Amino acid sequence: MLGFAAQPTSELASYRVMMKKLKIEKAFTLLEPGPVVLVTTNDGKRSNIMTISWTMVMDFTPRFAITTGAWNYSYAALRKTRQCVIAIPTVDLIDTVVGIGTCSGDETDKFEKFGLTVVKGKHGSAPLIGECLANIECEVVDIVKKHNIVVLDGIAAYIDNTRKEQRTLHAVGDGTFIVDGRQLDRRKMMRSKLPEGV
Amino acid sequence: MLGFAAQPTSELASYRVMMKKLKIEKAFTLLEPGPVVLVTTNDGKRSNIMTISWTMVMDFTPRFAITTGAWNYSYAALRKTRQCVIAIPTVDLIDTVVGIGTCSGDETDKFEKFGLTVVKGKHGSAPLIGECLANIECEVVDIVKKHNIVVLDGIAAYIDNTRKEQRTLHAVGDGTFIVDGRQLDRRKMMRSKLPEGV
Repeated sequence: MLGFAAQPTSELASYRVMMKKLKIEKAFTLLEPGPVVLVTTNDGKRSNIMTISWTMVMDFTPRFAITTGAWNYSYAALRKTRQCVIAIPTVDLIDTVVGIGTCSGDETDKFEKFGLTVVKGKHGSAPLIGECLANIECEVVDIVKKHNIVVLDGIAAYIDNTRKEQRTLHAVGDGTFIVDGRQLDRRKMMRSKLPEGV
Repeated sequence: MLGFAAQPTSELASYRVMMKKLKIEKAFTLLEPGPVVLVTTNDGKRSNIMTISWTMVMDFTPRFAITTGAWNYSYAALRKTRQCVIAIPTVDLIDTVVGIGTCSGDETDKFEKFGLTVVKGKHGSAPLIGECLANIECEVVDIVKKHNIVVLDGIAAYIDNTRKEQRTLHAVGDGTFIVDGRQLDRRKMMRSKLPEGV
């Protein structure tokens, strides 16, 4: 169990974040179901957050793609620092997710505005978000400019298993969101196809 | 309303597929929530299906990415014909989805084996799947070989609004699947960010 001392930026001064390290071989399972995510960056002066639902797992290592570009204020920091954190919010954060997605880091300190806890990462300047279910520290391995695809390697992952709300959100793209429902188990049928360590 | 006369390959001889055309501007909303999908191809001799959960929306036009490569038998047909259909299955098809993902088209006629209805598309040789909630006819616009990414443009989309089961599945990647739960509406908050026609 890693205990992060939160660095509060808001009224959440008493908030304390407890996240367990998640084996990196399992980190792709955070993205594979297709939740809307929050991606943090830090340009050396300030941390920022963007809401992204255009993500894809590319490999179990884990490797991820996100579609982004100059239309996102975070893109400049992502390109410059080649680091970001993918944070997985849950349904209780829906208005934060939508709020972050509908204002710009150019004008707003989003950690401040949405009362989110900056948690220092181990591997880079991009912060983890204390309120999220899980966080993945990532490095940019390539930018496919022609298609606005940023290819990321996950290098460390954390999950807060102590939180009661574990249901993630799936953006439909029309302003509605689908909440995780039941979980069905087909592990036996799929055994031959599952990667090692999952 | 488009009425497709099903071309049965199985015991579903009396099955009749009724799919409405979906405005192409809305087709990205089928993929954005991150459901596991079935991708069909036809190599000129036979139709095949693969189960894919590594997908991403790239643009509202709509443009999609899927991660695939020579490890999928369908990849050769996809490269050769530059066409495929992305079909969206619902929870009642979970064992079909898993079954398709755990056998190879090299040895198996998957439409036959899983009792699925071949529905002829309008734009290419890859068939729609009659049993699915929705189908998107796609053309390959690029293959980013370095990253095993196939970039697709959706050119026509269909949805069967008459079926009772509308809940899609999200693969976790560990052999479990999350079923769609509640839908939450944030259209008002997001109005400024929604594309035209959605």
